[in-house]
Amino acid sequence: MHRTKVRIVEDALDANNTIARANREDFDRASVSVINLMSAPGAGKTALLERALAGLADDGVRVGVLEGDVAGSFDADRLADLHVPVTQLNTDNGFGGECHLDANMVRTALGALPLFELDLLIIENVGNLVCPAEFSVGADARIMVCSVTEGEDKPLKYPLMFRACELMIINKIDLLPHLDYDIDRLEANIAQVNPGATTMRVSARTGEGVDAFRQWLIAMPGRAVTAG
Amino acid sequence: MHRTKVRIVEDALDANNTIARANREDFDRASVSVINLMSAPGAGKTALLERALAGLADDGVRVGVLEGDVAGSFDADRLADLHVPVTQLNTDNGFGGECHLDANMVRTALGALPLFELDLLIIENVGNLVCPAEFSVGADARIMVCSVTEGEDKPLKYPLMFRACELMIINKIDLLPHLDYDIDRLEANIAQVNPGATTMRVSARTGEGVDAFRQWLIAMPGRAVTAG
Repeated sequence: MHRTKVRIVEDALDANNTIARANREDFDRASVSVINLMSAPGAGKTALLERALAGLADDGVRVGVLEGDVAGSFDADRLADLHVPVTQLNTDNGFGGECHLDANMVRTALGALPLFELDLLIIENVGNLVCPAEFSVGADARIMVCSVTEGEDKPLKYPLMFRACELMIINKIDLLPHLDYDIDRLEANIAQVNPGATTMRVSARTGEGVDAFRQWLIAMPGRAVTAG
Repeated sequence: MHRTKVRIVEDALDANNTIARANREDFDRASVSVINLMSAPGAGKTALLERALAGLADDGVRVGVLEGDVAGSFDADRLADLHVPVTQLNTDNGFGGECHLDANMVRTALGALPLFELDLLIIENVGNLVCPAEFSVGADARIMVCSVTEGEDKPLKYPLMFRACELMIINKIDLLPHLDYDIDRLEANIAQVNPGATTMRVSARTGEGVDAFRQWLIAMPGRAVTAG
């Protein structure tokens, strides 16, 4: 029984990688850079995007969002106020509410996205620190948001997610004065599981530090093209 | 492909339910009440247990903890200071770090637990708002912890988890003065997806409200026996 289960999971990952490559080719054809944005529930992905994407077109970056949720369109509704194209992808037709986006779910949504009118596509994944890290969707970069309210131990407890991402946004720093929290210890824990990762300290609520992330996003399309 | 996948998942859930019933029979034989405690990462399950379990033996309840994590034993180490039996169960041998405890994982750990010396066993699940709700482990009650830092929309975005639990601990209320957060709206959203649920407002950090949860735990063994 156990062996059967493992074999099937491997097949599913093989199939996922094949579809992720097809997504990648479509993204390349449209010259669009793609970010897979992940976090635990409530870490502030949407609030960060509300802050960072506003007016990005004025900086020459045409951005679109693919919004993944188990149910509802709360985040997509929030982001639509930014006047960027937002496509909602709900996973609740999957087994009990799929806990992640996979390459095929993203592929299903591609037809609804104006890829050739975008420079940057942000895929906001389902809030979950485990499963989304296991499924490539064909993105150029994986970014995670971790909130200072979640405790400093999360990189050690969820190492796969922290290893999978190249940029960690440490959010809600406006709450630091009210927490027993050592942000240096969090960064040391991140460095332990992913020595090459970049970290940024931000507050999506106050806007502090968000400009560094905005500049990272603005530079992203150029970087992806340079990297081939 | 899709049909094949669905069939296998159903088989896995059938097998899980069979094993959950076997766990349930073992728990009944030992007259131990069992709680499946779930939350998003960093919502404060362990901090809540540190507060609520201390000295519970003085109230006539012998408690043990089964601690589920993807990797590490950080939470088990914290709880061992309470001088209650704690058994660590790591899921990282599973596919990419299993994102939940299932009945068979719990069953594997039962031999390490002094079931006949316990009145109450608390199974602290992996931090995840999706997958743990899908797998019965044979518990009497499912409880979730949600943190006020996660936003009021979570019951609507993760309805399966909020429907699966009978008690919701709303944690970190000490942070309310520093958040743009409407706790009444959270409770209204909980009532919308799970009208019968009980909610408790607590701060595991300050201890506020924890006594109500403690009293709930103390009454739990009696309730479970009454319920058969």
